[in-house]
Amino acid sequence: MASMSMLTSPIFSRPSPTAGDAIFLRRNNPISSIPCFTYNNGRPFLLPKSSPFTAVISCTAAPKGGRIRPEYIPNRISDPNYVRIFDTTLRDGEQSPGATMTSKEKLDIARQLAKLGVDIIEAGFPAASKDDLEAVKSIAKEVGNAVDENGYVPVICGLARCNKKDIDSSWEAVQYAKRPRIHTFIATSEIHMKYKLKKTKEEVIETARSMVMYARSLGCDDVEFSPEDAGRSEREFLYQILGEVIKAGATTLNIPDTVGYNLPSEFGQLIADIKANTPGIENVIISTHCQNDLGLSTANTLSGAYAGARQLEVTINGIGERAGNASLEEVVMAIKCRGDQILGGLYTGITEQHIVMTSKMVEEYSGLHLQPHKAIVGANAFAHESGIHQDGMLKHKNTYEIISPEDIGLHRSNESGIVLGKLSGRHAFKSRLSELGYDIDGKELDDLFWRFKDVAEKKKVITDEDLMALVSDVVYQTEVVWKLGDVQVTCGTLDLPMATVRLIDADGEEHIACANGTGPVDSSYKAVDLIVKQSATLLEYSLNAVTEGIDAIATTRVLIRGESVRKATHASGETLDRTFSGTGAGMDIVVSSVRAYVNALNKMLSFNTISSTDKKVNTKSSRVST
Amino acid sequence: MASMSMLTSPIFSRPSPTAGDAIFLRRNNPISSIPCFTYNNGRPFLLPKSSPFTAVISCTAAPKGGRIRPEYIPNRISDPNYVRIFDTTLRDGEQSPGATMTSKEKLDIARQLAKLGVDIIEAGFPAASKDDLEAVKSIAKEVGNAVDENGYVPVICGLARCNKKDIDSSWEAVQYAKRPRIHTFIATSEIHMKYKLKKTKEEVIETARSMVMYARSLGCDDVEFSPEDAGRSEREFLYQILGEVIKAGATTLNIPDTVGYNLPSEFGQLIADIKANTPGIENVIISTHCQNDLGLSTANTLSGAYAGARQLEVTINGIGERAGNASLEEVVMAIKCRGDQILGGLYTGITEQHIVMTSKMVEEYSGLHLQPHKAIVGANAFAHESGIHQDGMLKHKNTYEIISPEDIGLHRSNESGIVLGKLSGRHAFKSRLSELGYDIDGKELDDLFWRFKDVAEKKKVITDEDLMALVSDVVYQTEVVWKLGDVQVTCGTLDLPMATVRLIDADGEEHIACANGTGPVDSSYKAVDLIVKQSATLLEYSLNAVTEGIDAIATTRVLIRGESVRKATHASGETLDRTFSGTGAGMDIVVSSVRAYVNALNKMLSFNTISSTDKKVNTKSSRVST
Repeated sequence: MASMSMLTSPIFSRPSPTAGDAIFLRRNNPISSIPCFTYNNGRPFLLPKSSPFTAVISCTAAPKGGRIRPEYIPNRISDPNYVRIFDTTLRDGEQSPGATMTSKEKLDIARQLAKLGVDIIEAGFPAASKDDLEAVKSIAKEVGNAVDENGYVPVICGLARCNKKDIDSSWEAVQYAKRPRIHTFIATSEIHMKYKLKKTKEEVIETARSMVMYARSLGCDDVEFSPEDAGRSEREFLYQILGEVIKAGATTLNIPDTVGYNLPSEFGQLIADIKANTPGIENVIISTHCQNDLGLSTANTLSGAYAGARQLEVTINGIGERAGNASLEEVVMAIKCRGDQILGGLYTGITEQHIVMTSKMVEEYSGLHLQPHKAIVGANAFAHESGIHQDGMLKHKNTYEIISPEDIGLHRSNESGIVLGKLSGRHAFKSRLSELGYDIDGKELDDLFWRFKDVAEKKKVITDEDLMALVSDVVYQTEVVWKLGDVQVTCGTLDLPMATVRLIDADGEEHIACANGTGPVDSSYKAVDLIVKQSATLLEYSLNAVTEGIDAIATTRVLIRGESVRKATHASGETLDRTFSGTGAGMDIVVSSVRAYVNALNKMLSFNTISSTDKKVNTKSSRVST
Repeated sequence: MASMSMLTSPIFSRPSPTAGDAIFLRRNNPISSIPCFTYNNGRPFLLPKSSPFTAVISCTAAPKGGRIRPEYIPNRISDPNYVRIFDTTLRDGEQSPGATMTSKEKLDIARQLAKLGVDIIEAGFPAASKDDLEAVKSIAKEVGNAVDENGYVPVICGLARCNKKDIDSSWEAVQYAKRPRIHTFIATSEIHMKYKLKKTKEEVIETARSMVMYARSLGCDDVEFSPEDAGRSEREFLYQILGEVIKAGATTLNIPDTVGYNLPSEFGQLIADIKANTPGIENVIISTHCQNDLGLSTANTLSGAYAGARQLEVTINGIGERAGNASLEEVVMAIKCRGDQILGGLYTGITEQHIVMTSKMVEEYSGLHLQPHKAIVGANAFAHESGIHQDGMLKHKNTYEIISPEDIGLHRSNESGIVLGKLSGRHAFKSRLSELGYDIDGKELDDLFWRFKDVAEKKKVITDEDLMALVSDVVYQTEVVWKLGDVQVTCGTLDLPMATVRLIDADGEEHIACANGTGPVDSSYKAVDLIVKQSATLLEYSLNAVTEGIDAIATTRVLIRGESVRKATHASGETLDRTFSGTGAGMDIVVSSVRAYVNALNKMLSFNTISSTDKKVNTKSSRVST
């Protein structure tokens, strides 16, 4: 079959291939892996005469090294060098202090993770609360069914403790996905078994075995099992329990360094030992999950991959409890930069150009701000080249750089030459946003453009930082219950600050209140409280204006804790108080502060709740069932 | 000599030893190393009858494992397991964007680094500017001569490119220290030699050799040499140039992974190869310097130590250009936690209890805020145990924890049971500060206590976060040129914000101005500008109030760039614009914002400057001289 006709055929995802594009072909035998060829400098691609391929199915930018993601089979990967990326931002990341997200926010992030090309999305811990279950379900239904032209659709995974109740919740949520997975775990270190579980080794093995079988019995053919605190577990016991869960039907075995205690050589050895000594291990995928308590999570993860793990559990920006988890961006970029030379040819299916946008979205929604020197995605990560005249840099970019900002989707104003102002049109505006890594369309783009015009009236030059502040104010917002009308404040060193606030409720009715406080924010928040009549404690307040010039747009972020009924259960069994973040932007810091507070209150009010009493009953009954 | 009398003698640094304290003894022969004994559960310590010791000289918390820092000799360490910690916060850290510090701030940090027990303090790059030279000189004079009772005094090191002018500047600054060191470097990777230096291999070797000899000829017997971008340098060439500088008199060879490109296994192999193949390497100390571009700096540093490096270059909080350097706290705590089990018994001389205070001071002075999930020192690093009721945690602390907050000098309110309020006395106040890791005395304590009383009048309960905000406002401040008198502001959604500001100059004279702007901060900063009449660009503005309750103390931080004459030369040869940070605290965000701006202006005005023209001449002539 000649290929010339194929190149102009409508089955291409682009109008026509350009240099460097990859040509994806479907094999005659659909079970074998799909190879890819790089389009050769714009010249037509010709199939060999005795071609084993039936059709060209797509034509997109070539993945690193021209390699392609192998077809998804739960317990094996056809290419021994392919490493699956399992993102747990929405589960492990979301349960970290202050990072609570609404269902809408979780869905936004899940969509973005699919764009990024994550293999498995751990969408949440459905047993945590009704709201968590619903969030996972909606991700399973939408993101878990959006199959692209290459057959890619992320696995949607739900966490469950080793009990029927949790596993039922998890399956209830993930079953709607094309590729559902249940992830269940139990502690296997002596210290955890003795003090937390109060179970003998035999009881722990029996629980794990029977719960993996139970998950399979529900119809889930993709079951992950984690021995919690594996890093401190007795080696022989680990081989034994892992061997048993493999027999029971587990398809992925995840090895967590729960306390972030391992050094890379040690963690690599742990993976190698498990690979060498666990009966039946050749029939499953080994996974890593490294906490960052000693700052070694990325190194431990890579060490695990080198030793044979083919699934890596990570989070965007490395968020998570305590010092967080391994960062997706660090792990992925290390594999991209050094996979061929140092890691024996490992590669992932991640589209690195979406890293910046994903990182920003998670930073906004989680409220966990990155330090400027955060690797890959920190504000200073590429600061070397911006505005600094450095001999070596000018002469040869590579003297310092190993990753270019464009590789991860970051473009800079001074490179593109576009400066926005009040005469800028919608096209220039959208184009700049997309260079900054924001892929925004439709109504959100309209709202944003309107706000942009409003600011441009007051400010001569709109910087990238201004745009980012507007995006967080307009795009990353929750449903509106209360809307800010006006605020007026008088304050200073005279010690009699006062504020008047006008809010508009869901029915469009106006409410006005005034209050005194210790400062302008305290006064105006008290005025808001007088209207909204919901008790909330302010836990954190921060305000940033990272832009040149005093007339910057300030972004305020607040974190509040609502009444006691807004609880959830943590994966470790503890009860969490939900906290809610809100952001607001404006050129007046008092106005942006009030916007942020009203947004946080809206988030709190729109959050489905479950009473702590219900929760306790659940926990109890699930214990009995195991 | 019986020991009973000694235990009550005034030569103890504490009134009396308590359980776990170490007893330091002076040997009859003062040259041999001083052993230490741990005080046994409060019982008096008895010297053996045939005691080789003459006196008990101090009594402080025992160092890890009862081991003691070997005596300092530039090119060798008597204990093969001892690892030197080389802190470059004041050099590599300070030259990162926005982290400019004044001489006073640098001196404060150097004092704290000495308390922490850092072996070598890289105090700056004296050739950068006159001010940098003076800062290094004052650190050399004071901190470099404060020998403690155990004979410990940090080495004070100055960086220099491989040219006579830089080496002269460096020696001019460090020579006043008891243990001065010159650190010189030149690039050795092909890409750097070809594009940046434009030198052949032979020319590079000759420059390095002759400049090390030149440094020794000045009278400096402690010379460190770094082959820049060693990670990408040709292996054989590296052995050759290192062998030559050893012959020329270098005592420490530092191997930087300049672009943060190496993986741990690779970097460890590089150190092992250098150790195995460089002629004369047994007569010098090998050092690591790892950048964090892929998030692997801590792992690379530990891998280097395991392979034989006995000096580790690190910074507090991991600050530095781009993604920064290896973090002192991560490297030190990993060695402390796992040195015996995994790293063959390595240990350092760091007193970990000073980590928190040092981290906070550097965060304040550098203006580089840490993300909540920063390992060891982030706000969430120990969040697991605070306020969360978790089964396992309550039953046995070690189920999750590997480092306790107290290990690094962090104590929590809910543990100590002290809550401060307006009736709290000076003793409770000082005691709480010291539990938080702040060691503050004298006038600073007086000022702080006065401000505390002032706040306590308005706020019922003073939290730890309030105290920290006050410390940064009162303690971490620069010399006062302008002082804030009053500020009064009216603002809101009416779009006509206005501000009146009253400033007091150095002569006590009052100046008043009012201005309009886009918001309350913009208006009041414009009013300040009308009075101060110094052009400054606001680069960053941020405000934080991390405390429960709306009536929190807010801390504002600003970063400004002054006129063009405030330049410095970067170690890589580029010219830097100096930027200045300022902080202010208050219960009114507008007041704290104005305080921060006035502080930043004061810092800028008090900074010694050197014109960029002078600098260019220097650079040129130094090139000719090599």
